Amino acid sequence: MARRLADLVTEFGGVLRGDGSTPIAGIATLNQAGGAELSFLANTHYHRYLKHTRAAAVLLREQDAAECPVTAWVVQDPYAVFARVAQCLYPAAPFTAGIHPRAVVEPGASIDATAYVGANCYLGSEVNIGPGVYIGPGCTLSGRITVARDSRLAASVTLVGTVQVGARCLIHPGCVFGADGFGFAPDHGEWLKIPQIGAVIIGNDVEVGANTTIDRGALEDTVIHDGVKLDNQIQIGHNVQIGAHTAIAACTAVAGSTRIGARCAIGGCVGIVGHLEISDDVQITGMSMVTHSIRHPGVYSSGIPVEENAKWKRNAARYRQLDDLADRVRRLETAGTDKLHNK
Amino acid sequence: MARRLADLVTEFGGVLRGDGSTPIAGIATLNQAGGAELSFLANTHYHRYLKHTRAAAVLLREQDAAECPVTAWVVQDPYAVFARVAQCLYPAAPFTAGIHPRAVVEPGASIDATAYVGANCYLGSEVNIGPGVYIGPGCTLSGRITVARDSRLAASVTLVGTVQVGARCLIHPGCVFGADGFGFAPDHGEWLKIPQIGAVIIGNDVEVGANTTIDRGALEDTVIHDGVKLDNQIQIGHNVQIGAHTAIAACTAVAGSTRIGARCAIGGCVGIVGHLEISDDVQITGMSMVTHSIRHPGVYSSGIPVEENAKWKRNAARYRQLDDLADRVRRLETAGTDKLHNK
Amino acid sequence: MARRLADLVTEFGGVLRGDGSTPIAGIATLNQAGGAELSFLANTHYHRYLKHTRAAAVLLREQDAAECPVTAWVVQDPYAVFARVAQCLYPAAPFTAGIHPRAVVEPGASIDATAYVGANCYLGSEVNIGPGVYIGPGCTLSGRITVARDSRLAASVTLVGTVQVGARCLIHPGCVFGADGFGFAPDHGEWLKIPQIGAVIIGNDVEVGANTTIDRGALEDTVIHDGVKLDNQIQIGHNVQIGAHTAIAACTAVAGSTRIGARCAIGGCVGIVGHLEISDDVQITGMSMVTHSIRHPGVYSSGIPVEENAKWKRNAARYRQLDDLADRVRRLETAGTDKLHNK
Repeated sequence: MARRLADLVTEFGGVLRGDGSTPIAGIATLNQAGGAELSFLANTHYHRYLKHTRAAAVLLREQDAAECPVTAWVVQDPYAVFARVAQCLYPAAPFTAGIHPRAVVEPGASIDATAYVGANCYLGSEVNIGPGVYIGPGCTLSGRITVARDSRLAASVTLVGTVQVGARCLIHPGCVFGADGFGFAPDHGEWLKIPQIGAVIIGNDVEVGANTTIDRGALEDTVIHDGVKLDNQIQIGHNVQIGAHTAIAACTAVAGSTRIGARCAIGGCVGIVGHLEISDDVQITGMSMVTHSIRHPGVYSSGIPVEENAKWKRNAARYRQLDDLADRVRRLETAGTDKLHNK
Repeated sequence: MARRLADLVTEFGGVLRGDGSTPIAGIATLNQAGGAELSFLANTHYHRYLKHTRAAAVLLREQDAAECPVTAWVVQDPYAVFARVAQCLYPAAPFTAGIHPRAVVEPGASIDATAYVGANCYLGSEVNIGPGVYIGPGCTLSGRITVARDSRLAASVTLVGTVQVGARCLIHPGCVFGADGFGFAPDHGEWLKIPQIGAVIIGNDVEVGANTTIDRGALEDTVIHDGVKLDNQIQIGHNVQIGAHTAIAACTAVAGSTRIGARCAIGGCVGIVGHLEISDDVQITGMSMVTHSIRHPGVYSSGIPVEENAKWKRNAARYRQLDDLADRVRRLETAGTDKLHNK
Repeated sequence: MARRLADLVTEFGGVLRGDGSTPIAGIATLNQAGGAELSFLANTHYHRYLKHTRAAAVLLREQDAAECPVTAWVVQDPYAVFARVAQCLYPAAPFTAGIHPRAVVEPGASIDATAYVGANCYLGSEVNIGPGVYIGPGCTLSGRITVARDSRLAASVTLVGTVQVGARCLIHPGCVFGADGFGFAPDHGEWLKIPQIGAVIIGNDVEVGANTTIDRGALEDTVIHDGVKLDNQIQIGHNVQIGAHTAIAACTAVAGSTRIGARCAIGGCVGIVGHLEISDDVQITGMSMVTHSIRHPGVYSSGIPVEENAKWKRNAARYRQLDDLADRVRRLETAGTDKLHNK
């Protein structure tokens, strides 16, 4: 559904330099946009593509406007405005309310008349589905499950145990929420299972990527606060709490009972051990190993980047002698000092 | 179902200091327990919560009993006794045997009359389900699959190829057992698939967390021995063997043909390369990189914890010059020795 | 279905030393083979098993033939020939074309008459299934999905959004292709979703392991070229491109917009950050951290192998002082030079 460019500018703000009557039907990169497509320039890395763009218009900052060969839409934050325009041009697919005849809904389940439940879904007797909710095909909700207003489970999502999903959430395929946490007591060389009886509580406006797992709490609950964004294949252990508007990239694992603050940005493949406290506004770069609490906002990192294999072998061998190397440096320093004292 | 405290003490052992007539209906943390709830103190980290607890009773060690403001249940290992009491108070949900009318069971499948098969399950013609087994909704068992007595597949579990699951196992949603291992022969810049014809053999009393994958063997079998506990999102490659009562935390990957001994404890996000031998009673801390066999019991580690980004950058840059730094220290030492010899 | 050994040699090449009339009914390791089983010796690690093998025949190189106690099949590349023979002896299970009565196929879906669709599958109205395709039980295809000739979705595969799967692909259970990439614009401490409108394009002869996720592109497409082999639990971010015949081992994550060349071999648990370029013919060893582009073929590594915990603690502590240690070495060197100059 195309929109007049001038109307979009009126709706989302900024200043137009060029023809506002242009229809905007879609979005694309500077490099690939053409016809009725809007593009944007937010990252200087892509500046080189600006002068050759064939976009209908480009969202950009004042300092880039002079070089724009097509209609320029000047805003302070092109990426955020681009996001809003894109949401407007590409709304979530509409659906017709109802229960697919090939869904299985047990007696006792409560499903709002404005919700949709897809084929091959299973909704157990203690499931409660709110208004405007979309449950895509192949989802299994077995346990005490609540999904609030306007949330979407894309497809093949599994919710078990006790799970509350807030409003306007988007849960991607393969997610498993509410499975037992990993709790065992050692007992003479074997393991005794600790029953996991807590819930998973997901706030509003949370998005969770494909194949991510969030375990139910052991005794208390696992809590994901409003606006959290989790990427694919993330593991959230039992009793973890994640503060509002924190974003975590793919394949990161958070072990049990750790509390992460609000507005954190955590990279991919990070490992965070259990029972830690990470304060608000902490950034952690990808592949970091977090073994102690982080009590102050800031950027934190660990890990050693790749190098040529032969050099890696030498450095890794030296690393294993690092304690010895430090001792040798100390002896050299002492020897120098002794010499000084012996003068 | 509430139990009299004195009856629990009789059943599970230990000494009671206080009122044995108290009913115990549930379990909770020291911090949150109240009413008819039992709590426990096993980790000194939580000792500070003891004096304010409002639990009906607390499982603890002799040395903590004096400070307990409520009824004390004194045992040698509070965590293990807590596990047993919790299992008693929170037994696995009972089920009524039978096959859900919306399950698909192919002719030839054998399902014990005391087993349950949930909605939207698929059981192929070579599936064999033992007595007391629970197959939750949305499970797919396609191939030569055996599930032995009293095991539970929570929901959305996929077993393919040739898979044997032992007795009293608990398999969480999203697990995939029996998919092909990653076996290819290089051939002029392309890859030739090696057919994977081995099985997955899972012992008794094994628990496997959500979205964990265990590949079938290439020629021989992949074997998970009795009492092994695997957390979420673990990857077990083809032909791996894991010894009895070994526990592995989330997101760890074990590459093909590696053999891990009995009673090992392996942290999360560990990577173990293929064709290694890890002996019995080995502990490996989280995020470790295991590239060689470990032949002696003990605790093993690698990885560098997170630090402030600016410091990380400096240290990581130095790391890449480590071999050079070691050479420079050697030259300094030689210079010192030469000076000595020249005296 | 047993084959005469001599016939296999005629079909796959090489020289026979021994009885060609032996029937070959299966394959096995040197250690376990017996009766009518063919084995192979490709890795010197297993040479010790050769002299005791009871295989019907062994595929091996000329230099190993003299020590073979049974019929020797001499070839230049035993592993590649073994792969071909194994494929011949263990072909993919045949199936009868048709749609299982318990599959759900929406009006509008196009399914070739020679394809198979299993029980509990869901195929939406824009799904297009080519000739000879096998869609195993429990698969969900919801969106604009094309699966080309002779591909197999083993079971429980979820394809959403816009996904094209090429010919002769093999996709293992739990895979999710086409979920939204992780794209958000920061906006006053919250996150604005960037609609993800690109596709996932998978070439021909691609194999993808269990629970691997491949996200749809943001604006452009995510592209996996012909002959790529991906192991289990791999994460491929939006807009990633992977060149032909590249193989990636389990649990590796490739962040958004990175381009990996052709014929690369990437180990398990590797993390590759976004917006990088990895050239053709690059090898990266397991658990490496790739934070910069790699522009030349070669072998690249990072990561520090496991050591005894006590030693690890000392070395890790020294690592955190590495920048300081390097400064101290510099001062020692300067002191030495000063002494020299002061002579």
